[in-house]
Amino acid sequence: MDADLQRAPWTVRKIPPLDQEAMTLARARQDKLTKPPGSLGRLETLSVQLAGMTSKLSPRFQNKVVIVMAGDHGVTARGVSAYPREVTAQMVANFLRGGAAINVLARHSGSRVVVVDIGVAADMPSHPDLVSRKVAHGTQDFTQGPAMTRAQALQALDVGMEITDMEAAKGLDLVAPGDMGIGNTTASSALIAAITGAPAETVTGRGTGISEEARRHKVRVIQSALQLHMGDMGDTFGMLARLGGLEIAGLAGVCLAAAAKRVPVVIDGLISSAAAMVAASIAPEAKAYFIASHRSVEPGHQVALSWLGLEPLLDLNLRLGEGTGAVLAFPIIQAAANLLGEMATFDEAGVSEASDE
Amino acid sequence: MDADLQRAPWTVRKIPPLDQEAMTLARARQDKLTKPPGSLGRLETLSVQLAGMTSKLSPRFQNKVVIVMAGDHGVTARGVSAYPREVTAQMVANFLRGGAAINVLARHSGSRVVVVDIGVAADMPSHPDLVSRKVAHGTQDFTQGPAMTRAQALQALDVGMEITDMEAAKGLDLVAPGDMGIGNTTASSALIAAITGAPAETVTGRGTGISEEARRHKVRVIQSALQLHMGDMGDTFGMLARLGGLEIAGLAGVCLAAAAKRVPVVIDGLISSAAAMVAASIAPEAKAYFIASHRSVEPGHQVALSWLGLEPLLDLNLRLGEGTGAVLAFPIIQAAANLLGEMATFDEAGVSEASDE
Repeated sequence: MDADLQRAPWTVRKIPPLDQEAMTLARARQDKLTKPPGSLGRLETLSVQLAGMTSKLSPRFQNKVVIVMAGDHGVTARGVSAYPREVTAQMVANFLRGGAAINVLARHSGSRVVVVDIGVAADMPSHPDLVSRKVAHGTQDFTQGPAMTRAQALQALDVGMEITDMEAAKGLDLVAPGDMGIGNTTASSALIAAITGAPAETVTGRGTGISEEARRHKVRVIQSALQLHMGDMGDTFGMLARLGGLEIAGLAGVCLAAAAKRVPVVIDGLISSAAAMVAASIAPEAKAYFIASHRSVEPGHQVALSWLGLEPLLDLNLRLGEGTGAVLAFPIIQAAANLLGEMATFDEAGVSEASDE
Repeated sequence: MDADLQRAPWTVRKIPPLDQEAMTLARARQDKLTKPPGSLGRLETLSVQLAGMTSKLSPRFQNKVVIVMAGDHGVTARGVSAYPREVTAQMVANFLRGGAAINVLARHSGSRVVVVDIGVAADMPSHPDLVSRKVAHGTQDFTQGPAMTRAQALQALDVGMEITDMEAAKGLDLVAPGDMGIGNTTASSALIAAITGAPAETVTGRGTGISEEARRHKVRVIQSALQLHMGDMGDTFGMLARLGGLEIAGLAGVCLAAAAKRVPVVIDGLISSAAAMVAASIAPEAKAYFIASHRSVEPGHQVALSWLGLEPLLDLNLRLGEGTGAVLAFPIIQAAANLLGEMATFDEAGVSEASDE
């Protein structure tokens, strides 16, 4: 590990392993519940993981938070998005007014939305609900040089950890990293290509909805960036600095800080998965606290999920980001825990068990 | 249509088509919301369907009900299940005490559970929350003759409609048909094979968790039943009577009565899908009100969903029934409606739209 990472405050944080005893108890109870063993499918394995993460048989997620980090991307100068870069700032204003998709979903699921300016290009008017931690006015165009310096990437990572700590102080038992940043599918696809070695073609999609021709251009942009930085990237943190984004670095910090506090991290789509990969590269133990919420339309997302070893809960053809897929999965995650805690056992209910066959 | 069906009260109920004007308005608003068009994937099409069903742009589902119909199956004498038939009655008692999976899920999603004895073999002790509408003490063994008479099947169908009407009188805006009945995957697989023409081998799974050897036996049992009744089945209603179950007939009635009231019907797994197929055969207009909640592990379920032309929202390896998958999908269905109703438009939020490419 590089010296700058060793100096970083989060490296002294230990990420505890899953509580094996809690998982054994959870598994044992799961098999005594009044249903055929295994018939609740993914919810059964999920309930056991949740017990391992929280040391509770049936955790009640009362402090659910989505941390939306917003940042701009220099690569938008290459014409990789259907939307002008100004939309990042406009959408931050929309988050603060409660009009975006993530606001609607969070409201109905009883979750808090924390909006962080970690790197919006525009100067944002101050707002009581905006957490201002601007590391830079957007990244640099990574086809011309590194997107960020290592110091900026590290600062952004620290911001993610600091915000997570702040939220933990208010109460935090389930967290979703959310993203906003015009151009951030380009940065995430480039980063996923660099980390996994997958070709740019395989991991690059239509983002906000560009044409196939524009997608091919986006692939070429990513290829030229990979070409430029090849040989200089070093470790995953170096890849993050050269190809990533301020919000991606910040969300990696969220993943690390949450895992250190044993808070389950619900991963959304392409951008938050790229952030989760960075976090897992820095601290492999963090991965045990990740839950994949959905499979995005973006082709790079499946590559990221496979690399992370995660199977998503939902597959709804989403490609919005903001943490929307993650918050949609919150009720399913809570349901898994509730079932384990509240269903009657065969003994309690006087129900006959299956015969051996 | 047979004379007995023509006399049935429900045939005079008209199932209205979807409200095309509401759908047009919903589609138009969906495209103005502050997100890339199409980026909410399945939730966008679902929101348009919900508007068509309810004539509301953003329906609030405050009266969510799962109607669990319980019935026994004569074919259990052939050793097709891992559980003794007594479990049907025991599970009804468990539902009434609130200890089953469906109770836990319904409680946390704010849904009512209605438990109906439509054909449990045992005499159930009376209970204030048990709706007693026993048509018969279970069906007959369909490898020896028809499972039900047509009169019984019709009576069970009527029970489903009556219960739905009762619930509608209390308030009903989203309904899930739920099932309980040891042996009912055998009946449902047989019925799906008869309706679709798919081979028994293709539509028969391990149900509550039988071995592969036991599954092959189950396939042979179904094949022998199909052989026995072939030529005598007539229409889908005839197939229902000969191969189905009392709870399957009842749930078909739920589907028909709900559609007639323009209440969205959230289909669960194998058994409720078989019931939905019967309903759609009787009244094809009902299908417009069906939403598939999840894809079950049971192989016949995909055959049923394809026949119905439905794509499920969830794929969580569930195979429990009771309406569990349907109730798990309730929050996603509500989310689709909320997003359409509450997200800001580009104009309202002052967000720039995509450029043409």
